[in-house]
Amino acid sequence: MINANNPSLKSWIEVSSESDFPIQNIPFGIFKLGTNSDGRVGTRIGDKVIDLSVVAELGFFAELNIDISVFFDSSLNGFIGLGKDVTRAVRERISELFQDGNSEVKNSDELNRIVLDVDQVEMLLPVEIGDYTDFYSSEQHAYNVGCMFRDPNNALLPNWKHIPVGYHGRASSIVVSGTPLHRPKGQQKPNDDEPPVFGPCKLLDFELEMAFIVGKSTELGDSVTTADAEDHIFGVCVFNDWSARDIQKWEYVPLGPFLAKNFGSSVSPWVVTLDALEPFKVAGSKQDPKVLPYLEFEGDKNYNINLDVIIETAEGQSKQVTRSNFKYMYWNMCQQLAHHTANGCNINVGDIMASGTISGPEEGEYGSMLEISWRGTKPVPMPDGTERKFIHDGDSVVMRGFGEANGIRLGFGEVRTKVLPAKG
Amino acid sequence: MINANNPSLKSWIEVSSESDFPIQNIPFGIFKLGTNSDGRVGTRIGDKVIDLSVVAELGFFAELNIDISVFFDSSLNGFIGLGKDVTRAVRERISELFQDGNSEVKNSDELNRIVLDVDQVEMLLPVEIGDYTDFYSSEQHAYNVGCMFRDPNNALLPNWKHIPVGYHGRASSIVVSGTPLHRPKGQQKPNDDEPPVFGPCKLLDFELEMAFIVGKSTELGDSVTTADAEDHIFGVCVFNDWSARDIQKWEYVPLGPFLAKNFGSSVSPWVVTLDALEPFKVAGSKQDPKVLPYLEFEGDKNYNINLDVIIETAEGQSKQVTRSNFKYMYWNMCQQLAHHTANGCNINVGDIMASGTISGPEEGEYGSMLEISWRGTKPVPMPDGTERKFIHDGDSVVMRGFGEANGIRLGFGEVRTKVLPAKG
Repeated sequence: MINANNPSLKSWIEVSSESDFPIQNIPFGIFKLGTNSDGRVGTRIGDKVIDLSVVAELGFFAELNIDISVFFDSSLNGFIGLGKDVTRAVRERISELFQDGNSEVKNSDELNRIVLDVDQVEMLLPVEIGDYTDFYSSEQHAYNVGCMFRDPNNALLPNWKHIPVGYHGRASSIVVSGTPLHRPKGQQKPNDDEPPVFGPCKLLDFELEMAFIVGKSTELGDSVTTADAEDHIFGVCVFNDWSARDIQKWEYVPLGPFLAKNFGSSVSPWVVTLDALEPFKVAGSKQDPKVLPYLEFEGDKNYNINLDVIIETAEGQSKQVTRSNFKYMYWNMCQQLAHHTANGCNINVGDIMASGTISGPEEGEYGSMLEISWRGTKPVPMPDGTERKFIHDGDSVVMRGFGEANGIRLGFGEVRTKVLPAKG
Repeated sequence: MINANNPSLKSWIEVSSESDFPIQNIPFGIFKLGTNSDGRVGTRIGDKVIDLSVVAELGFFAELNIDISVFFDSSLNGFIGLGKDVTRAVRERISELFQDGNSEVKNSDELNRIVLDVDQVEMLLPVEIGDYTDFYSSEQHAYNVGCMFRDPNNALLPNWKHIPVGYHGRASSIVVSGTPLHRPKGQQKPNDDEPPVFGPCKLLDFELEMAFIVGKSTELGDSVTTADAEDHIFGVCVFNDWSARDIQKWEYVPLGPFLAKNFGSSVSPWVVTLDALEPFKVAGSKQDPKVLPYLEFEGDKNYNINLDVIIETAEGQSKQVTRSNFKYMYWNMCQQLAHHTANGCNINVGDIMASGTISGPEEGEYGSMLEISWRGTKPVPMPDGTERKFIHDGDSVVMRGFGEANGIRLGFGEVRTKVLPAKG
């Protein structure tokens, strides 16, 4: 077992039992302090953000013999690029420094520069994203969409159980939690017999996803096997792949979603390492028909992580509309990465690969309003007496993820996005 | 008229009448000299590459009052980011320095550091690409594909004449001319009644495209009008959007092409500015039905640029298989950019947006082997007695573009890619 994952560890920083950030988590993120500063690398324990640039500057990582300039960067790319041996050693060392009984940092004269209140800092996008890929890997989601738009008896397309279907998304418009987004405008064709119209999207939706951050680059022409894939995955975030259903419906044949997606996607700020998620591994569902050899894998590659979606109205009334789970993935991350690189496509540190909407088998476990309201036929009642078929201006969509296993509870924090009215 | 475009100008550098690079061109690119040097910014006249970092260092741009560090970068992003007023002034100044009668550079003691033989240098990728988008804007290409895969009476999909259809591609695997690519491997389903197989692609194809480089960034939420679009376009390259037809056919429904495209795309090294292309502007074909107001535009926005594709065998025997033209675009670049940003999607300097395969109305003007060989039913005889339905290992595909108008002939140089056998 990785020492940092030891469930009996406690930190000398106070951590409530419901916190996403016990000392067993130690995620990495980029924060800034004050409006004029640049971003730098931090971690989080309870409600405290740890400034790792100061920890490094004061020599607490000296024995690791690493280039500490990476902790002063405004993205995690440099840190991640040091490789998993190094980032793992840093996580282990942080675990050591902040566990009960260790006084190295606790007694430091610089304690107030190292340990900051979470309210003091602003979280930034954790990585500089080269390319963004979105998969479509939840069977229930693909089935639900197939039922609504095609035929319940033929809901899954013929390739779906052979290929971890994916497509390229827009990297430039990925924003960190807390960044509001304007409702997109675009072409829609509400009436089959009339020409398309242009205007604000009427069917704005979220998609509940998890996204992994590539941790090790490859050269063009190289492939990553399922066995090596975890070496190339640094960690995971919660991801909201915003979707404009009316724009999507009219534009997506034959080349896939484009303007229906690229107006914005939202990511949670803390990257939870694959190491920290080790205790939450579970088996995925059986894959039948048998997959091609390059997609075969050994061991448990799914993760038991609860995923919640809450809609908050402009007035602050909130309703949880989903509890899904990351374990409901037909195709796991190792298969996604092996597929993505099977043709020699190169990947780079900081690339984001998202899961696709994660829906569970039951109502109440669906990962989009499209499914929850079943195309608008089952509106969701809100506490203020209004109802939601899709997302309204002024609503905030909040997604959270957390797991409980083997004596550890940890989570991802949240990805929160407020929807502003369409511009001008 | 822009002074640099004056057809009566001649350079004191010798330029053959067939050269793509008369003094009226003045494209920008990144080159390196020797194996240990980094890239820097250059232009080209005839068979000479001009090292603009040395021109700048020696003070020849002093009156322009610009940050000359951009000429020492290994991408054009910094230079382009100075804005069109500046890059236009640099082009005008280069035109002045290298025209007949000007001796400022010609008599410089450092002439041999400034003017280099094209054979001395290696051309690199011209820009650091944030995001790459591929459109599908040639009507003949969309029609041909529709005829082959659907129905000649319904070849164009209902959205095609309303939307400049596009999709996101992979930025990481875009390579500069001269970079060989391995034949990709992937899933194919050659037989409808049998499961898919995995192996080297059998139907490897090129796509003849032009690509523009974004010259001015926008913020998330902003849109670019067709009237402002040219301000946001720095210049244009020739682009080969490599495609694996058998992988594409099996994977692309419903989310579009993915592994069939992202194993590599090839771009020509010299970015020809939109200013230099001004003399080649022509009207596009009439758009009927009338487009939505955000896609309306004024003036001529197509370009009369001949586009050639040559296949060279491993033994060096070559055959031109296409002469198409950039003017055969139903949707012009201004409409593409207005559409791309209509939903608030942000764009960044260095983004690449490609046209989609450009096919003309006649046989002999088709932009892909899929169309030229009509799905393999009309093989192309080669000078060595072999034939081509698609591209073979060892073949090089060469694309060139040039225009002749208003007393000026200029071109793009070439994008050349050799296909290596599939790895391992």
